Amino acid sequence: MTDEQRTFAFVVYPGFTVLDLVGPLQVLSALANTDQRYRVVVVGETLDGLGTDTPLGVSPSHTFADVPAPYALLVPGGGVPTMRALSHEPLLAYLRSAAAGAELVTSVCTGSLLLGAAGLLEGRPATTHWMFRDVLRAFGAEPVARRWVEDGPVITAAGVSAGIDLALHIVERLAGTEAARNVQFGVEYDPQPPLGPLDWSNPPFGPLRPLREQVLGEGLADNPELLEKLLAHA
Amino acid sequence: MTDEQRTFAFVVYPGFTVLDLVGPLQVLSALANTDQRYRVVVVGETLDGLGTDTPLGVSPSHTFADVPAPYALLVPGGGVPTMRALSHEPLLAYLRSAAAGAELVTSVCTGSLLLGAAGLLEGRPATTHWMFRDVLRAFGAEPVARRWVEDGPVITAAGVSAGIDLALHIVERLAGTEAARNVQFGVEYDPQPPLGPLDWSNPPFGPLRPLREQVLGEGLADNPELLEKLLAHA
Repeated sequence: MTDEQRTFAFVVYPGFTVLDLVGPLQVLSALANTDQRYRVVVVGETLDGLGTDTPLGVSPSHTFADVPAPYALLVPGGGVPTMRALSHEPLLAYLRSAAAGAELVTSVCTGSLLLGAAGLLEGRPATTHWMFRDVLRAFGAEPVARRWVEDGPVITAAGVSAGIDLALHIVERLAGTEAARNVQFGVEYDPQPPLGPLDWSNPPFGPLRPLREQVLGEGLADNPELLEKLLAHA
Repeated sequence: MTDEQRTFAFVVYPGFTVLDLVGPLQVLSALANTDQRYRVVVVGETLDGLGTDTPLGVSPSHTFADVPAPYALLVPGGGVPTMRALSHEPLLAYLRSAAAGAELVTSVCTGSLLLGAAGLLEGRPATTHWMFRDVLRAFGAEPVARRWVEDGPVITAAGVSAGIDLALHIVERLAGTEAARNVQFGVEYDPQPPLGPLDWSNPPFGPLRPLREQVLGEGLADNPELLEKLLAHA
């Protein structure tokens, strides 16, 4: 690493949705492997191993304190554990201070709610997992139904797998079309969903309000003030 | 967990490509979260943490010995570390013994070379990362250029991100179209590659033979016999 390297800090916290992180981590690691201007790290509050929303455990490469001023931040989302993290001040404090000097502040899925809780989405268009899109209003953001939403330095992506598209867009933005194409071939991203694209005229799971209330209620049981604020938009 | 549960064993080894594993792990964990007939575990030779091809460390939930007879196996691929793993007998022995009783034996990317090294692809059509497709012949397999190739219990997927498509196909095969659609909405898999689909008439990186020779040569430096066998097809 050199002083001139631009560091992408991928943020982890207990129980996050692992594909939210790993999709863009794989893509941006491929960039860093071929372009010495970039460096990728995984940052956590400590170096301890963490659980995810799957049986895979993970461990960060650096602490928040090790990487106070990254070039770019990426924040993954999740379900109940992410709602819990909305009240975890050490995480929010890192997001605020790291974002202040960052050129890119990005999220995948409900990671955008964490950006919102850190006060970073006020007045911005943004997106998140489709089930939680309306909740963004609680943080002063304007919800947008797109794969990713770019507002200057802040880019938020839709749910889970959208982080791969986000990351390829970032590679294109930073290093150009040829670099993005090479990375896309490297991870052989030529998607063929067996059932085709999602049919947004007919999403499953019935009314979303009770589902959202349950996830928010369980995750924010210890923070009734924030819970009330979010439920007003759920 | 109950005796009736069908266990998906996701195999890890040092240095594997993390998205190969995490794409299908996220999809099949979503199935297991809503269908109690299924259970997902991550198996390693020991419970120790492992490096990946990114700065993210991972740790398995179980050892090979803990899960001798899974319902399904999924083997991720990678670059040089995967070529090294082609000579790692404890891993190959687990793949052989676990596959013998499994209903599904699957791989992502160059994970299919590991299935091949374990003797599991003899006479079968199969696929892998596009750069290594020809090498499958060294294991008696017939290379096929498709997103995934299904031959009875053995399903091999193309490179890295292809594991997501593979896993949604597995959900559909096991639990039906509605379940697969629900999981697809859950992980919001509605891909929008910024540069569109891959243009296979114009792949990058120039001639593949020197690249393959380098990766195989470095990974198989200690196994000249296997190296020679693979180079004959590289």
